[in-house]
Amino acid sequence: MLLKRQKSEINLNPIQRGGILTKEGREALIEFGDGYAIYDISPGLEIEDIPVIKDFLEKELPEFLESDIAKFTLGAREGIFNVMHCITKPGDTIIVDGNRHYSTITAAERCKLKIVEVKNSGKPDYKINVEDYEELIKKHKPSMILLTYPDGNYSNIPDAKKLGKIAGKHKVPYLINGAYSVGRMPISMKKIGADFIICSCHKSMASSGPLGILGAKKKWEKILFKKSELVNKEIEFIGSESRGTSVATLIASFTKIKERIENWDKEVKKARYFSAEMEKLGIMQLGEKPHNHDLLFFEAPVLYEISQKHKKRGYFLHQELKKRGISGIKPGLTKNFKVSTYQLTKKELDKVVSAFREIIEENL
Amino acid sequence: MLLKRQKSEINLNPIQRGGILTKEGREALIEFGDGYAIYDISPGLEIEDIPVIKDFLEKELPEFLESDIAKFTLGAREGIFNVMHCITKPGDTIIVDGNRHYSTITAAERCKLKIVEVKNSGKPDYKINVEDYEELIKKHKPSMILLTYPDGNYSNIPDAKKLGKIAGKHKVPYLINGAYSVGRMPISMKKIGADFIICSCHKSMASSGPLGILGAKKKWEKILFKKSELVNKEIEFIGSESRGTSVATLIASFTKIKERIENWDKEVKKARYFSAEMEKLGIMQLGEKPHNHDLLFFEAPVLYEISQKHKKRGYFLHQELKKRGISGIKPGLTKNFKVSTYQLTKKELDKVVSAFREIIEENL
Repeated sequence: MLLKRQKSEINLNPIQRGGILTKEGREALIEFGDGYAIYDISPGLEIEDIPVIKDFLEKELPEFLESDIAKFTLGAREGIFNVMHCITKPGDTIIVDGNRHYSTITAAERCKLKIVEVKNSGKPDYKINVEDYEELIKKHKPSMILLTYPDGNYSNIPDAKKLGKIAGKHKVPYLINGAYSVGRMPISMKKIGADFIICSCHKSMASSGPLGILGAKKKWEKILFKKSELVNKEIEFIGSESRGTSVATLIASFTKIKERIENWDKEVKKARYFSAEMEKLGIMQLGEKPHNHDLLFFEAPVLYEISQKHKKRGYFLHQELKKRGISGIKPGLTKNFKVSTYQLTKKELDKVVSAFREIIEENL
Repeated sequence: MLLKRQKSEINLNPIQRGGILTKEGREALIEFGDGYAIYDISPGLEIEDIPVIKDFLEKELPEFLESDIAKFTLGAREGIFNVMHCITKPGDTIIVDGNRHYSTITAAERCKLKIVEVKNSGKPDYKINVEDYEELIKKHKPSMILLTYPDGNYSNIPDAKKLGKIAGKHKVPYLINGAYSVGRMPISMKKIGADFIICSCHKSMASSGPLGILGAKKKWEKILFKKSELVNKEIEFIGSESRGTSVATLIASFTKIKERIENWDKEVKKARYFSAEMEKLGIMQLGEKPHNHDLLFFEAPVLYEISQKHKKRGYFLHQELKKRGISGIKPGLTKNFKVSTYQLTKKELDKVVSAFREIIEENL
């Protein structure tokens, strides 16, 4: 069956911007597209023992994350589950931020955990005050705490380092969900003082999917990587987590990933510029301001107003943008929507702002 | 970093032969290589709701597997874990065949299950007599039974249908691990009488990896796909299992997969021919004879004898084959090794046999 993408000149979809393959990643995709092609790097070796992969897991990734150890996972959510499954037991309580991704909840429920959420500050900032964890830690004695850094809605950057100190003080294992940070912006597990860091390679690391990374402190190695006595393979990872095309694309893209995080300041500057330009059109950015991430959540009463009278209803915005070569805002949405400015040029962002201006002027 | 495959004219690696992309699969690979490109089929829809994917999961796959329902998993082993995790509880006993893959053991240990194995018949056939399950079922009252069909060592095809009757009689949930069958040979969950069937797309379904499929009877739907009340997403699959490039390659390859299983008779005939020709060289095929699968396990005392005197020791075989454009036998192995004849032509197999003949004649 023929499957085709609906492509556009400018794609604003926050879930896609960080996962666009580099040239090198695309070459690896083509080279390693067949099912188990990865075995052809060093015939006869287990994947984890292939020198380039072993080196990547044992040196490159821990250096990059400033973790002690690193492991491929099947995705960010699976990495979160791996940790929860290894260090908690059914009935335990965990504390998570109120901006957490839904998969944090399903992973915890899959482990039969009780979940306590740290509320955000509500509209318009939706901020997480990490100091709020402390009371809850004292009250619930959690098996672990989790912080989404940043979250995928408002993409607020909470004070992860301060939470690291609180976690250290109360000796609670601390997991950072970096699905929207690792691969985009500089981040150090060590500086944050976390026990675990979770990454999404298809979301933020210029890789094919699904693929995630788990970084951790050395002290968790034996628990996470415990081997079966019967078959001498790791139990939590069912023997092998890292098979497939995505691993090759990540390794191939990695040099460029390290380079691009050096330009994070420029990315933030662009996001702020875009946010300010959109606000001039009566489209308000929610979440932290000034903003510290390329993912932006907007509230657009002016577009909602148009949708109420337009014959295409809420779908007019998607269609009008599409006509202008712009995609990535969910069809049907007008009142609230998310975009990412990641790796778009100022010229492209200006084109997007102009498109919004035109659409408002033509339809209001 | 530049990653390259060591390619050869003829690759005999059993783990790779069924996962080679079709032309259509390769087109989908390139189209959907970026991280979350799959969202571009129908912008705004959840992956499971994209019509072509929904149709594939709800119609094409259940028809193909003769299951009631089907679901993508992150691989065969993850699918086995999904089932175990949903239908057993820690401390339960399961019964598996002695030829099971190591990941059956790690998946069970990850669920804290007790494992009872049905022994195989030992050398030279290593057959599983499915009638042996019945006594063990009576004795251990297992939460589920598992049969590897075929196993990845001797690739024996056990009497899965007979075990279906035994499972039915004792009302024990019955899982078929079809990682080496689904996508290669005709197989029907319904005819076998199994509750679950597990597939490996990167191993046997001309797909990029990692990707698996879980087929199941309707009666397990509510248990497997139970949703979180907090976030309205499936708990066992942490909200979404089917994201990524591999899904696109599978769907694109699927028409060819359905066609190729119609030629299974020819594949078996080729495997038997190859086995007989190798035996003429003093290389014995272990496992069922006549053989019923493309994966063949050989015992080659003659090659082992050479390795004892050769300056390259056990590595001579790999090197001699490589010189002749043949790969896929693990470097270092001579006494026992596995190959697959899947989708190789008779001419190619003759070339392989000639190579072995030459290597023996030149080195003995």
